[in-house]
Amino acid sequence: MEAKKNIETCYSPKLFNLFDKTEKLIVISDIFRATSSICAAFDNGAKEIVAISDKDECLEYKEKGYLIAGERQGKILDYADLGNSPNDFSKDVVKDKNLVLNTTNGTKTIKLAATDNNNVVIGAFVNLKALTQYIIKKDMAVLILCSGWKNHYSLEDSLFAGALANKIIINTTGKFYTECDATKAAMDIWEIAKNNPKKYIQKAAHNFRLKNLNLDNVIDYCMSTNITNVIPVLKNNTTLINQKDI
Amino acid sequence: MEAKKNIETCYSPKLFNLFDKTEKLIVISDIFRATSSICAAFDNGAKEIVAISDKDECLEYKEKGYLIAGERQGKILDYADLGNSPNDFSKDVVKDKNLVLNTTNGTKTIKLAATDNNNVVIGAFVNLKALTQYIIKKDMAVLILCSGWKNHYSLEDSLFAGALANKIIINTTGKFYTECDATKAAMDIWEIAKNNPKKYIQKAAHNFRLKNLNLDNVIDYCMSTNITNVIPVLKNNTTLINQKDI
Repeated sequence: MEAKKNIETCYSPKLFNLFDKTEKLIVISDIFRATSSICAAFDNGAKEIVAISDKDECLEYKEKGYLIAGERQGKILDYADLGNSPNDFSKDVVKDKNLVLNTTNGTKTIKLAATDNNNVVIGAFVNLKALTQYIIKKDMAVLILCSGWKNHYSLEDSLFAGALANKIIINTTGKFYTECDATKAAMDIWEIAKNNPKKYIQKAAHNFRLKNLNLDNVIDYCMSTNITNVIPVLKNNTTLINQKDI
Repeated sequence: MEAKKNIETCYSPKLFNLFDKTEKLIVISDIFRATSSICAAFDNGAKEIVAISDKDECLEYKEKGYLIAGERQGKILDYADLGNSPNDFSKDVVKDKNLVLNTTNGTKTIKLAATDNNNVVIGAFVNLKALTQYIIKKDMAVLILCSGWKNHYSLEDSLFAGALANKIIINTTGKFYTECDATKAAMDIWEIAKNNPKKYIQKAAHNFRLKNLNLDNVIDYCMSTNITNVIPVLKNNTTLINQKDI
């Protein structure tokens, strides 16, 4: 009998080194906003996205024709072409373009996972259904890495972890399970939130941060489920591409 | 108007340095079993408890007449007098005694908090009501530090954080609140669990670990609420005493 696959959740990048990554699919969750925005970008025809934190490296890529999507704590970087909201990545801006993503938390999280030929995929509510199907087909153990806020636990990223674990487990019969307390807690809060995730997430600290930055118009998109089939995966430890383009 | 006091929760000792500790009361949660056992010890008349991880230092205290309560991953240390289960700390063993506590996770967590004259108090379901009253009277911001399992998130420690935050907030009118996502999630799982916490916690990974060690007879005590009024607090960065003995 084939071994059942465990689903684990890491609530903070700072805890990531506690987890064994061998033969696991790492799903990155940064709902407000990096992973939602990455899905939007590929949905609108972006070719590739490179996660870079260093300014000089960003500028090198800019010289090569990459568009720079860059923010720190909600403010667009002076050398960036666009911000980090899903609506910045519209079709007229990103179609057939290569992009650099440089954000407060998401970029660091992607870079953290992007080593040792790890299997890395981008998760968000907007691609939840397609991602669930992709993971079930992959048939690997899953480690969901929540980006959080400056290494702190965040409600929206763990809520997504709970939603994803729930979908994977209920759509397979005994093939996946979890023995991870963090996943169990995340699934419990998803159980509370699932009938109205947009309402549930109003209490998240990041919701208030986005409101203060007048960026709360992105919440509706980021909390919408199943509006794109893109599966952004990491290639060569460096570059995100849509899995369909492989 | 007096400022409202925030309640924060730290899910792992490894995240503790992210939090500002100024003018906060730090509550340590290690439900299975250290903080439950500490409450049991004081309830049965122990005079003081010192948290020590180092073997040589433990032996020095043993020479001075301290009883050593010591375990690693559920096995009693060869130089220890007793283990780390609440029933090890019975009245005939601990009354009027000084103790050393040397455990896998709890001791490290206590030592982590026990610096800079931090205000540290021991929390468990068994002293939940008395602790809630103590905290409300103290009228300080609260930081609940979950001991977890080898720096991983644990369900029972965060469930206690949710229970405590819930009790503090509902027993005061607007004096306490939380803007911490980790506390909000903990309160949500407490909402699910509160009618039958013993049943809820059956799914916790540590429950299975205790069963494998034949230590699951402690779960009933550790998940019982309000069976003692002791408030173990830290004195001089080193020594736990019952607050009533100050």
